[in-house]
Amino acid sequence: MQERLAGVADRVQSHLDQVLKPFEGPVGEAMRYATRGGKRVRAFLVMESARLHGIKDSCAIWPGTAIEAMHAYSLVHDDLPCMDDDALRRGQPTVHVKWDEATAVLVGDALQALAFEMVCHKDVPKRADLALALARAAGGRGMVLGQALDIAAESAASPLTLDQITRLQAGKTGALIEWSATSGAVMAGADTAPLQAYARALGLAFQIRDDVIDVTGDAATAGKAVGKDAKAGKATFVSLLGLDEAKARAGALADQACDALSVYGKEANGLQHLARFVIARKA
Amino acid sequence: MQERLAGVADRVQSHLDQVLKPFEGPVGEAMRYATRGGKRVRAFLVMESARLHGIKDSCAIWPGTAIEAMHAYSLVHDDLPCMDDDALRRGQPTVHVKWDEATAVLVGDALQALAFEMVCHKDVPKRADLALALARAAGGRGMVLGQALDIAAESAASPLTLDQITRLQAGKTGALIEWSATSGAVMAGADTAPLQAYARALGLAFQIRDDVIDVTGDAATAGKAVGKDAKAGKATFVSLLGLDEAKARAGALADQACDALSVYGKEANGLQHLARFVIARKA
Repeated sequence: MQERLAGVADRVQSHLDQVLKPFEGPVGEAMRYATRGGKRVRAFLVMESARLHGIKDSCAIWPGTAIEAMHAYSLVHDDLPCMDDDALRRGQPTVHVKWDEATAVLVGDALQALAFEMVCHKDVPKRADLALALARAAGGRGMVLGQALDIAAESAASPLTLDQITRLQAGKTGALIEWSATSGAVMAGADTAPLQAYARALGLAFQIRDDVIDVTGDAATAGKAVGKDAKAGKATFVSLLGLDEAKARAGALADQACDALSVYGKEANGLQHLARFVIARKA
Repeated sequence: MQERLAGVADRVQSHLDQVLKPFEGPVGEAMRYATRGGKRVRAFLVMESARLHGIKDSCAIWPGTAIEAMHAYSLVHDDLPCMDDDALRRGQPTVHVKWDEATAVLVGDALQALAFEMVCHKDVPKRADLALALARAAGGRGMVLGQALDIAAESAASPLTLDQITRLQAGKTGALIEWSATSGAVMAGADTAPLQAYARALGLAFQIRDDVIDVTGDAATAGKAVGKDAKAGKATFVSLLGLDEAKARAGALADQACDALSVYGKEANGLQHLARFVIARKA
């Protein structure tokens, strides 16, 4: 699985290198910096979802790269001092540490615009539908809502319940994952329901695994600070379920994700392997 | 002219009221707050450009409202302490003052996504082309670039030259104005050249007038702090050209903008009146 992810990561990186070349000044430099690295799980979802629906790689690479730009923007803003105040991301100094806060705000803003620019590229089938879905997934009823709930939780009087965390996660991580997984069906004008079911289970499994890594991982392997949630007294899937039950829940969700794809037969192997990978990863 | 602007402003506001209703929590509330007021010059450009090309108001209201959401996002981020650090906007406390910085970052992010959501509405003709153009206008080679050049100018060793300020303005204010003015032609699949020429002259006239207001205006009328540029030792069109020459330049640009529309005959009256209004306004 890691080889297949690495293959997609290489394609995304060389596409980003091309697309980001004309962006000048410190903001351009920081846009290139902020989009480097990462597992490229979202791009992999786009590429596999597209392949499943007979969409060519040369078309799918646009939304595949777009979603990574969108994800990168969310990380840059998320790391800001007024948000999570993180100094380390993917083992490197965050944008506001390496440059400054103004640059980090602008880089995030520019990367969000770039994501829409790439999704609207003329080679992308049904690009308007895809861009509309992306705007909804990324906006104030999707990713930004999840982020806002996360910030609010930090100053809440009592820790969140399981339902509240699940809802927070559905916005913060789930919305972009769902967009990615369903993108191939959207581009083909096909039914998105099986991939939506897959994505919802996968997104939740992904977040549970993140919480497990925060407790059991080390910073060097994870590429970011760990143990932060426990220190901050934040409710997580692990604090609410316990470590064993959290792992079991992630496993059951991966099963559920795989089952949702049975309609595609063997063609969905890549996406099924990803679900297994997501709940076993250490970073 | 102010009556016609007020008519568009009313339509935009009631459309925003509808569109923003489902957004919950402090971010939803602050999105409504941040999109209130303003002259709605950009929306007026969209509505007039659409009318000129036979596009119905019920379609044009989507991009018309979208560009106001995009503009509002840029103001919210622009006002942040790490950027221009403004406490007052349109006579009211800025978002990070009334709420906090995290909310201001998220509100801007959500408003940008909302702008794309509205442009991609199914009622908008050529919505993908329009969204693509908007992404380019708003992004790291458009508005964000202008903003970055503005921030960089503050810490530069020497004040900017006229060419540098013109370039900065073309990004910061000009890109969204050009998108607005050409949007009707894009929706109709028509030639954008006359409206592009109009918009470039109008955008520059608009910025020169802003610099004039910063020197000659008072905060109560302008609805924002004035005299800031001179205090900060920033080069402006007024500091470089002198007050009289700056006013003359704005007037000549308004003439140029009007001339560019001669191909449309009397139908372009609304846009020509706007050019006259822009160089005479006090806020």
